[in-house]
Amino acid sequence: MDKFIVIGERIHCISPEIREAMAGRNPEPLLRRGRAQLDAGANYLDLNIGPAEKDGEELMMWAVKLLQENLDNVPLVLDTANKKAIEAGISVYNGAKGKPVVNSADAGERISYIDVAAENGAIAIALCSKHGVPKDNDERMAYCQEMLEYAMERGMEPEDLWFDPLTLVIKGMQEKQKEYLEFIRQLSDMGLNSTAGISNASNGMPKEVRPIVDSTLIAMAIECGLTSAIVNPNDKRLMETVKTAAIIMDQTLYADSYLDI
Amino acid sequence: MDKFIVIGERIHCISPEIREAMAGRNPEPLLRRGRAQLDAGANYLDLNIGPAEKDGEELMMWAVKLLQENLDNVPLVLDTANKKAIEAGISVYNGAKGKPVVNSADAGERISYIDVAAENGAIAIALCSKHGVPKDNDERMAYCQEMLEYAMERGMEPEDLWFDPLTLVIKGMQEKQKEYLEFIRQLSDMGLNSTAGISNASNGMPKEVRPIVDSTLIAMAIECGLTSAIVNPNDKRLMETVKTAAIIMDQTLYADSYLDI
Repeated sequence: MDKFIVIGERIHCISPEIREAMAGRNPEPLLRRGRAQLDAGANYLDLNIGPAEKDGEELMMWAVKLLQENLDNVPLVLDTANKKAIEAGISVYNGAKGKPVVNSADAGERISYIDVAAENGAIAIALCSKHGVPKDNDERMAYCQEMLEYAMERGMEPEDLWFDPLTLVIKGMQEKQKEYLEFIRQLSDMGLNSTAGISNASNGMPKEVRPIVDSTLIAMAIECGLTSAIVNPNDKRLMETVKTAAIIMDQTLYADSYLDI
Repeated sequence: MDKFIVIGERIHCISPEIREAMAGRNPEPLLRRGRAQLDAGANYLDLNIGPAEKDGEELMMWAVKLLQENLDNVPLVLDTANKKAIEAGISVYNGAKGKPVVNSADAGERISYIDVAAENGAIAIALCSKHGVPKDNDERMAYCQEMLEYAMERGMEPEDLWFDPLTLVIKGMQEKQKEYLEFIRQLSDMGLNSTAGISNASNGMPKEVRPIVDSTLIAMAIECGLTSAIVNPNDKRLMETVKTAAIIMDQTLYADSYLDI
């Protein structure tokens, strides 16, 4: 079984520090957060530049080169609503350590993000939704199939789609969590790769509760066969759980020091 | 879905304090540990008096009465290799808060523990092994079926057997953990109740690592459908995980204060 992939979520323009650094092309905050996440065990870094309607292409190229040149060609997840910016980012991307990931397609208006991945030899995160929250797993699976066919018609391999079941907030959609986990299992049973924005589940909860919820949910999701997740790798409890899950799932060999590796 | 049952493991003669208290019929240590476990969220208390070959019957009766009379008829798991002591314990047991649980039968030499449960209206923990570690899930399932038939022939209801998949130590049997979890799922798919001595998995690991491993494993096992576990309820991280899993599995209603309840 392949090793679970941790995608660090902390280079995100929602953070004032990162937004400002991006606007001023200030390398330090991006590099510092990049390093901190890699040191904590992230395998990929998500690079979210927001809508970036004005200068998205130039900004994405700057950030991709900055991170890869300084952080040993770290593989990146390119995350923006500006499709041209993703293409620009890929044009300067170094694939030595892993393909770029396009974040994200869905089965609706953003289906063409699959084209971007297909045309550029990239991976696509494929959100199993079309308009809003899917009402059940039949709907999720229909969207999954639509995107899978769409991608394969364009020459992509199934493993280059990372299906996202759409993580739902527990406060308000508590009764939907079991079905969500069951969908991850269905993807796994089909041999498909998956990813999830785990912390969406704990949105709106007290700050001290969130790491507990996120780590419990990720353990359950990994047991169901989740193959990657977009998370905060600097959440100690969460990363301890991810590393331990890898031991239990026999993806990494146990040593007494495994948490420090 | 019924609520997950936490069986507190801390009244165990392996603890020098408890062994001494049992020998001297000193109530305080048993009551203190009983209260601490119930306060932390235990639903049942395991009462392990060891082999207790000499005075097991009298000791078990004393302890059962002591715990139930002082702790609001707390339901108990009677745990000893002395079968007569279990019968003696049941003879003074108050079932107002739940049936007594016999710990434990297996498909081999201890099959007659099922008779004890059947004859006394008790629940039996049924270890899915015969002699040593089952080699795979086919073997586990064969023993499960044997015990199920045996119990039903004696008038027991299937839900009064809590099947134990036999938790295996990760150090040494790392590659068997996924199969173990899969067996819990098989039991759940059959609608059967289950229990597990979760902390066996982290045996031999550094002390600070064990709560991390135990809590990760129990989250995974609950996702697979485990219905109860024998654990240390005073392990904070573990109980936080159990309470959170109950939220995710929609067994208890979310409130911001759910960890304090």
